[in-house]
Amino acid sequence: MFVPKAVYRSAGLAVAIVCCCALYFMASAPTAADEGMWTFDNPPVKQLQEGYGFTPTQAWLDHVRLASVRFNDGGSGSFVSPHGLVLTNHHVALGQLQKMSSPQKDYVTDGFLARTAAEELKCPDLELNVLESMENVTERVQGVTKPGMSEEEALKAHKAEIAKIEKESQDATGLRSDVVTLYLGGEYWLYRYKKYTDVRLVFAPEEQIAFFGGDPDNFTYPRYDLDLALFRVYENGNPVESKVYLRWNAKGPKAGDLVFVSGNPGSTARLDTMVELEAQRDYSLPLTLSLLRRQRDVLKKYAAQGPEQARQATNSIFGIENSIKAIQGRYQGLLDKNLMAKRAHDEKDFRARLAGNPEWQNAYGDAWDQIAAAEAKVLERRKALAYRQLRGSRLANLATSIVLCAQEVKKPNGERLDGYHDSQLDSLRFRLLSRAPFYPQMEEAVMTDSLELSRQELGDDDPFIKAVLDGRPPAEVVKGLIEDTKLADPAVRKALVERGDAAVEASNDPMITFARRVVPQIRETRKWLEDNVESVETPAGEKIGKARFAVYGKSAYPDATFTLRLSYGTVKGYPMNGTEAPPLTTLYGLYDRAYGFALQPPFDLPARYLDPARKSQLDLSAPLNFVSDCDIIGGNSGSPVIDRDAELVGLIFDGNIEGLVGEYVYYEVNNRAVAVDTAAMTEALRKLYDAGFLADELKGK
Amino acid sequence: MFVPKAVYRSAGLAVAIVCCCALYFMASAPTAADEGMWTFDNPPVKQLQEGYGFTPTQAWLDHVRLASVRFNDGGSGSFVSPHGLVLTNHHVALGQLQKMSSPQKDYVTDGFLARTAAEELKCPDLELNVLESMENVTERVQGVTKPGMSEEEALKAHKAEIAKIEKESQDATGLRSDVVTLYLGGEYWLYRYKKYTDVRLVFAPEEQIAFFGGDPDNFTYPRYDLDLALFRVYENGNPVESKVYLRWNAKGPKAGDLVFVSGNPGSTARLDTMVELEAQRDYSLPLTLSLLRRQRDVLKKYAAQGPEQARQATNSIFGIENSIKAIQGRYQGLLDKNLMAKRAHDEKDFRARLAGNPEWQNAYGDAWDQIAAAEAKVLERRKALAYRQLRGSRLANLATSIVLCAQEVKKPNGERLDGYHDSQLDSLRFRLLSRAPFYPQMEEAVMTDSLELSRQELGDDDPFIKAVLDGRPPAEVVKGLIEDTKLADPAVRKALVERGDAAVEASNDPMITFARRVVPQIRETRKWLEDNVESVETPAGEKIGKARFAVYGKSAYPDATFTLRLSYGTVKGYPMNGTEAPPLTTLYGLYDRAYGFALQPPFDLPARYLDPARKSQLDLSAPLNFVSDCDIIGGNSGSPVIDRDAELVGLIFDGNIEGLVGEYVYYEVNNRAVAVDTAAMTEALRKLYDAGFLADELKGK
Repeated sequence: MFVPKAVYRSAGLAVAIVCCCALYFMASAPTAADEGMWTFDNPPVKQLQEGYGFTPTQAWLDHVRLASVRFNDGGSGSFVSPHGLVLTNHHVALGQLQKMSSPQKDYVTDGFLARTAAEELKCPDLELNVLESMENVTERVQGVTKPGMSEEEALKAHKAEIAKIEKESQDATGLRSDVVTLYLGGEYWLYRYKKYTDVRLVFAPEEQIAFFGGDPDNFTYPRYDLDLALFRVYENGNPVESKVYLRWNAKGPKAGDLVFVSGNPGSTARLDTMVELEAQRDYSLPLTLSLLRRQRDVLKKYAAQGPEQARQATNSIFGIENSIKAIQGRYQGLLDKNLMAKRAHDEKDFRARLAGNPEWQNAYGDAWDQIAAAEAKVLERRKALAYRQLRGSRLANLATSIVLCAQEVKKPNGERLDGYHDSQLDSLRFRLLSRAPFYPQMEEAVMTDSLELSRQELGDDDPFIKAVLDGRPPAEVVKGLIEDTKLADPAVRKALVERGDAAVEASNDPMITFARRVVPQIRETRKWLEDNVESVETPAGEKIGKARFAVYGKSAYPDATFTLRLSYGTVKGYPMNGTEAPPLTTLYGLYDRAYGFALQPPFDLPARYLDPARKSQLDLSAPLNFVSDCDIIGGNSGSPVIDRDAELVGLIFDGNIEGLVGEYVYYEVNNRAVAVDTAAMTEALRKLYDAGFLADELKGK
Repeated sequence: MFVPKAVYRSAGLAVAIVCCCALYFMASAPTAADEGMWTFDNPPVKQLQEGYGFTPTQAWLDHVRLASVRFNDGGSGSFVSPHGLVLTNHHVALGQLQKMSSPQKDYVTDGFLARTAAEELKCPDLELNVLESMENVTERVQGVTKPGMSEEEALKAHKAEIAKIEKESQDATGLRSDVVTLYLGGEYWLYRYKKYTDVRLVFAPEEQIAFFGGDPDNFTYPRYDLDLALFRVYENGNPVESKVYLRWNAKGPKAGDLVFVSGNPGSTARLDTMVELEAQRDYSLPLTLSLLRRQRDVLKKYAAQGPEQARQATNSIFGIENSIKAIQGRYQGLLDKNLMAKRAHDEKDFRARLAGNPEWQNAYGDAWDQIAAAEAKVLERRKALAYRQLRGSRLANLATSIVLCAQEVKKPNGERLDGYHDSQLDSLRFRLLSRAPFYPQMEEAVMTDSLELSRQELGDDDPFIKAVLDGRPPAEVVKGLIEDTKLADPAVRKALVERGDAAVEASNDPMITFARRVVPQIRETRKWLEDNVESVETPAGEKIGKARFAVYGKSAYPDATFTLRLSYGTVKGYPMNGTEAPPLTTLYGLYDRAYGFALQPPFDLPARYLDPARKSQLDLSAPLNFVSDCDIIGGNSGSPVIDRDAELVGLIFDGNIEGLVGEYVYYEVNNRAVAVDTAAMTEALRKLYDAGFLADELKGK
């Protein structure tokens, strides 16, 4: 299951380990059939015409784009009614469900249904974005680099120009405005988003059925999950009314049908250089896996203390196990000699074509060596990059963000750290002032363990360890911070954020004091990455991006960037474990798998599913989940699957295990996107959840 | 699916390619948990006591043995009622079903149910065996080898002694008497069988449901097959009445239950030497695969000519595709470096222990080099061994058997070719006089293609090609033989067999004339194998067998030999494709998979399964198939799965794809035996097939 991860444009450092070296490459043309996460300005018209006899009109594209929604904490969704109803996955909603739950009312376990508008529950910190417009700003961004500038100067000018473009746009339109780097810097686009922050929960089923099969079935297929949730978007206290939404096709798709996915794939590394892939394989991924496993073990130990601890830890454990399985799949991909051979072959072919033209070779040919040199520096410093980090405490991360924000906003917009530009401040403040509850004992357990590991790896004399621990044991430091901080109160955070740097400097909240000690360390790491990696890899990436356009033209798609993309493909099964995986599963299969495991968790069913009166009403042959070869990846969770008429037939919630290598390579033969079928969603709403009124709203009645 | 193959003690030459080098090794101790195909004289008492707290009594063992049945053309079964009802798989019965079918009445497609004794259909050439007694004759067989004998003389004496033991036993008891080589010659046992040749078909479902999922699902799991058939055994015109049968437990087993399988695993190569495994990997298996694929393609072309041709070819295509998938799985196993490393390690360990004792080393240590030398000779001659064979025509094979039989029976019993000893003649004649129909055009197509390939590979000057073709094109030769022979008439064969050598020599039936030309070639190949392989590998095998007893004691089981064995294990799922395969599947799952493929073949269902009136009566949660880690292999098809009380809970019909390497290594983690559950069998008989009277008989009502 593709789980929200806030690694995209994150202000934190958590990105550094896995993503500091992630550059976005344009895919090598020609691509495989049905491959690609296409931007809406460059849809795969030729492929659709030739492969399917279908031509998307501009109106079709605009309609799909404007009905698509980004969940900013890492997922996708779509408008599915004229009254602001938004469909996404239960696991995309899970963070909000947990934040709204309490020991008395557990929406994760029990699910939720608002029978009236008054019963709809406002989410504490959920921001949705709709991509209103796109503008190519490549010339402006690339134009600021002047001959004679040093690498650092060039990077600074580049960043300042991006901040300026974003600020101008935001001031002019009032829309969230992000400059997006595509094709590794071959293009820069200004994306303007309409933002929604009053989002209310309408329906969620029990986690048991949304995540039926649990961690074992996660990322696999055949699958039997009802992984959906419905929100309603409000503006000015009323539901948004709009004609731009996807009509609901309760029949779902058939095998062989052409379908599309419109959503926000998070990141891919389809065209990282071999040097980068090898670094991932040999260092980054094994390290990430060991850190995640350790963190999971700490959380499981915490959860074992009692039912309330278990409730608190559910979402985190779920997210970590999900990541472990996903990263393990990617890691296996990089260990696969065939995959690496294909990538090496593609890189060799590209570079040979480049070398065949002296002008190209002269302009772009040195990019690979530059990236290799930067990667070598990262490897040298890998211990510091890995362990000079705060992990496991939302409170601590909020504190460092508050301190950084207060310091940054005093600077001119163009000179600030990424994440603190004017155009980003609204979203940042919305996050900083989240009303979601904290679980201090859980944070204490995880943060303590993380600091113990950092001390062990870095030693007591490391400047980060000195700043953080000040010579004391991690358990004592963390206990003091967590017990005495007042930051859990949104009002306290609000006062600090609003009153700014002087107030933050003067605060004697222990977590803020702590953050003031740690922030210089964070800055030091960021600076090092800027000077040694970003300032090298950004221009090198631009070279490779331009070289790709020169060699292959714009016949391909850029790597994923958690921005809106269109994928296309066919509903179809695939060869699996000696036989064929079916194009779709049915409600029959849900009961088969449940009884096959004697209804034992994670294959147990909510009581309503076993109620003979309800069950006898169900059409068990209704399709439950289906697969297509649409090219998706994490971030696409919650994406609508639509047909030629742009009607909704499904809801992406996962990829299959064979497709985890999609991070690096798309294999049409067995890379599959797994979706919930509208047929089962309709059947369940009407016959299992007594929510016929919602099914009616979806059907436009 | 484990399909009957007449390769066990076969009189034909088809064995030569794959099996000429197959020796039977005792397993290395210690074995994995639940590993082993144990002889009934040496059951795994210690393992059962320690692992399961269960002690099988002698009465329990005798009861299970006497209720177990061997299907002589390559499968297993069991008595399941006091009135001679025998349960086996549909695919074990398939050959007989096809032989009893006609263009007017297709029992394969439509199934069969006898509502009265009079409606039961007598099988044309089905022989069942029950293992009445076992006697250790190791000393007699090994004792005939005297110092100073040449290898050829020793082999001759050895064979003569075996023939003598068999003849003595048969004369004394009237029972079929076979001397079985176990532990690679470490032991020889005289097995006496009660034979049944009046066997009548009682029930078979449609092939569609017996083989639901077809070739794709074959050898895989989760599975949804009702792969059963019921026969009734008659003696003197009446059903056999006996108290020795397995009681029917209609509940089936639960996950975690201890279960047993009693059946006849065909052959394994768990302890072949590395030299032999490498020969299989590098020569035998790739060659076999290419021959099978070619034969399948010829049959498919034939089947495409029309519905009657398709009907004729069904069973053969089924068998060949099954073999391809099975052998492909084994081949993958041998290509797996981990598997080969484990086997190499085991061999190294064994030889090191042997070398540690000078006496052992002196007595047995040269066996490996002797086998390696013989294998080298086989490789040199591999083209002749592979292509000097008649393939694809039952008529031609019957003819050569008739000629060989007539010639051999004139010799003293001890000097005859294997397959023609006195004790084997009854079964041989039963087969030679089969009343099953022939499909001449199909035989013509396959045999012609096979001879074209042989000519191409061996050249026109090869003595086999000269004898077979006599300078003419294969198509012409085969057409003449098939069109003009009268051997399809059982009476013609009967006359030849009864009148013996003079009549056979005088016959001018073209197929007999042809066989007389070919038989010297068959003899030449047999002689070569005897002189160069058997006379070396038989004593070398005995050495290794004795060495194993010396090193490990008799704590292990011998390789499979298509004789009765007891396996044991637990009903449990296993890790599969990133998730868990369930311990069992249900009728729900059958419908899920059928609808998942939109009821398209091979996932279509017989009409009765879609009849709403019948379907609404079904308990869809009834277990359909289940898996256990019992150690089985081809030949075990149709074996009963029983519980501690020796009650029948299931019916083996397949292994999973992960278990195909069980030919060489048993991996407890994912080697699984797949069985039909008694629950679904009962449910289907009563509610889908209107055969409640059979369910009642099974329940002892």
